[in-house]
Amino acid sequence: MRAVDVIRAKRDGQELSNEQIDAFVHGATHRGWEDYQLSALLMAICLKGMTPAETGRLTRAMAESGARIDLSDIPGPKVDKHSTGGVGDKTSLILAPLAAACGVVVPMMSGRGLGHTGGTLDKLAAIPGFRTDLTENEFRIALEKVGVGMIGQTKDVAPADKKLYALRDVTATVESVPLITASILSKKLAEGISGLVMDVKCGRGAYMKNRTDAATLAQSLVSGAKANGLACEAVLTAMDAPLGRAVGNALEVVEAIETLTGHGPTDLTDLSVSLAASMVRMAGLAATDADAEASVRSALLSGAGLDVFRRMIDQQGGDPNVVDDTARLPRAPKRAVITTAQSGCVLEMDAFAVGTAAMILGAGRKTVRGRIDPAVGVVVRVKPGETIQAGEAIYDVRYRKNDTLPEAASLLESSYKIGEAPPANRPTILDTIR
Amino acid sequence: MRAVDVIRAKRDGQELSNEQIDAFVHGATHRGWEDYQLSALLMAICLKGMTPAETGRLTRAMAESGARIDLSDIPGPKVDKHSTGGVGDKTSLILAPLAAACGVVVPMMSGRGLGHTGGTLDKLAAIPGFRTDLTENEFRIALEKVGVGMIGQTKDVAPADKKLYALRDVTATVESVPLITASILSKKLAEGISGLVMDVKCGRGAYMKNRTDAATLAQSLVSGAKANGLACEAVLTAMDAPLGRAVGNALEVVEAIETLTGHGPTDLTDLSVSLAASMVRMAGLAATDADAEASVRSALLSGAGLDVFRRMIDQQGGDPNVVDDTARLPRAPKRAVITTAQSGCVLEMDAFAVGTAAMILGAGRKTVRGRIDPAVGVVVRVKPGETIQAGEAIYDVRYRKNDTLPEAASLLESSYKIGEAPPANRPTILDTIR
Repeated sequence: MRAVDVIRAKRDGQELSNEQIDAFVHGATHRGWEDYQLSALLMAICLKGMTPAETGRLTRAMAESGARIDLSDIPGPKVDKHSTGGVGDKTSLILAPLAAACGVVVPMMSGRGLGHTGGTLDKLAAIPGFRTDLTENEFRIALEKVGVGMIGQTKDVAPADKKLYALRDVTATVESVPLITASILSKKLAEGISGLVMDVKCGRGAYMKNRTDAATLAQSLVSGAKANGLACEAVLTAMDAPLGRAVGNALEVVEAIETLTGHGPTDLTDLSVSLAASMVRMAGLAATDADAEASVRSALLSGAGLDVFRRMIDQQGGDPNVVDDTARLPRAPKRAVITTAQSGCVLEMDAFAVGTAAMILGAGRKTVRGRIDPAVGVVVRVKPGETIQAGEAIYDVRYRKNDTLPEAASLLESSYKIGEAPPANRPTILDTIR
Repeated sequence: MRAVDVIRAKRDGQELSNEQIDAFVHGATHRGWEDYQLSALLMAICLKGMTPAETGRLTRAMAESGARIDLSDIPGPKVDKHSTGGVGDKTSLILAPLAAACGVVVPMMSGRGLGHTGGTLDKLAAIPGFRTDLTENEFRIALEKVGVGMIGQTKDVAPADKKLYALRDVTATVESVPLITASILSKKLAEGISGLVMDVKCGRGAYMKNRTDAATLAQSLVSGAKANGLACEAVLTAMDAPLGRAVGNALEVVEAIETLTGHGPTDLTDLSVSLAASMVRMAGLAATDADAEASVRSALLSGAGLDVFRRMIDQQGGDPNVVDDTARLPRAPKRAVITTAQSGCVLEMDAFAVGTAAMILGAGRKTVRGRIDPAVGVVVRVKPGETIQAGEAIYDVRYRKNDTLPEAASLLESSYKIGEAPPANRPTILDTIR
């Protein structure tokens, strides 16, 4: 099968056959296709789309391009959660221990952050000693002993995705629902899970800015997973303002710990509990949403979730005492506050601006080779819906290098709106697609 | 300017700026862009199109990517003709001498044939000794002495087009009106001409199968040329059946000579005269179409065109005696005839099938590296509109290798339709766009 014929078919809007999709993925994995042919097809897919059947097959072919972990010898239902990326999104650190405390096995392979969003791997790296580079055997032991393990993607998982993602990044072909779907799911299929909860973020701080696009992606993820025998539900969640109050790696670990002790921000607590409840229900450990949520709330209140988190840190070589003494986490040497000139109610807060400010401070990376400073970040003192007096601080900035402050401060200063009447209450969870 | 931003702009349907187009062409010429970025943008252009302003700028940037011949020191108006490619299209060999006989300077740079269509260079190569690899100085001398020169594109003409065409061929991005326009015109702008007559072929044997697409391309060529200061008119011509009766290189040279002696097929003669007349009028050597055509007809009847053709062959190192003794041209050793089982009137003839049959016999090349046999080909004995008796030959096949005959014969056998009533008379010239 010639590459040019496959490209032509998609260019002309045809549905590709299984054989054509397999040839593309095989060509990407084993260099049978030239890079310029891969990128031409990626652009044609971007502009002409793919049917659910094509997306499902692409997902499968990409998953099968590399190693897949078989966890069938580990007892218990394996369910994971994946988020499309947001600002202040540390739910994984909270919901995975909660779900594990309820009996779910959570084999979580995470990525690094890029741009204005952080990655779970970067947050975990803020915990002194924590290793995310477990061997497969160490990962299995962690899952058996603790019920949760958090590692990075090994290099032999979905090599076709690695190849194609690198090309997409430099050819403006990232923004494509079928390509995003196959990229996310191919890696999740390799985890050996039977169920997946997708958190599809939507809003200024997310990759999907509007609800229609986010719903389309959510639908595509659910159908793509199901087509490959993976139970999946997608939760559409708002990402206009940061989730919780902390943005920055060590700051977010602190907030996750506070949340697991029952003292977290409401939006973060509620979303984490809800997603964990979905995992518990998908795992077959609760019959209804209400039962599942009751079970998760109980693990939160009893401290069982916090205990799993402590044991996970210990199992993966980290300092478990950070859970009781967050001062052991890295702290930025300098601090500044952003104050408001106006009294009133915070109406809006731009998560993209806050995330970008944190990145500039060193909490995130502009390019894949960028280095992270675990200590720096932004703390939101007053969130949308809360009131503030003129001269009070709306943000705390934790920084290290003086030359990072001006640009970050300037972004933060124009990142919010204050008005008189409180804004309409906006729910975090917008919709669920099963 | 980053390649990825230019690609994204076109992907999103934006009009590219002059600077963005220049960056693309510069990147193609000097390897500043990776091949996978070039092909991604080519696919985006294929699917999102370009405005006339963008196409004009792309044409200019590609023309300026390499050497341009300056013919301003050679007296006389310089006008060329270019065809988008058809089957049996040997008009260049006829109209260039005719136009030159009327006072037009014709600096013709031609290409090789590919697939089912032949190229002027391949036809000229059938003339013993004929050189198409003249140096620029030899080319100038030919133009001054004879008024016409026919050469291949030198390697320093439009290198961006060479690079992009090679990529388009293997990434299914050939079929794009703005890309075809820029590819054709960038090379024509390099010839140093002031006027161009485009023969845009339309029908089964052409690249543009339907009239709407052909008209769109014709319009794009005319506006792209004018945007770059080149007077241009495009003639839309039918390419359903082969033009004339001969398909194959030496066979076509013979037919061109017959036409220049006044004994050519009507469709070929009329089209050649009409295109030459357009060149004469564009050159300012006749005030009206009628005057121009009278002038060309006179050059045909007087033998002045044939004389120019003879002198051109001589000037370019070929054997000028072929004009008077066509037996000096290569002849295929074997001959077969394709006969019909039915009596009646030939209603249709598929130029694509006839061209492909000739290619299989060795008259054309399947791939750019294929070799040509100048002697082989197909002669159409009975054309659409003419009557035939059952058992009579509709095609003569001139071949060399026995193993080429069965496939060619099979294509020819199913390439025509015979019926009772003669078909409606179909004009060769469908439209003119100025």
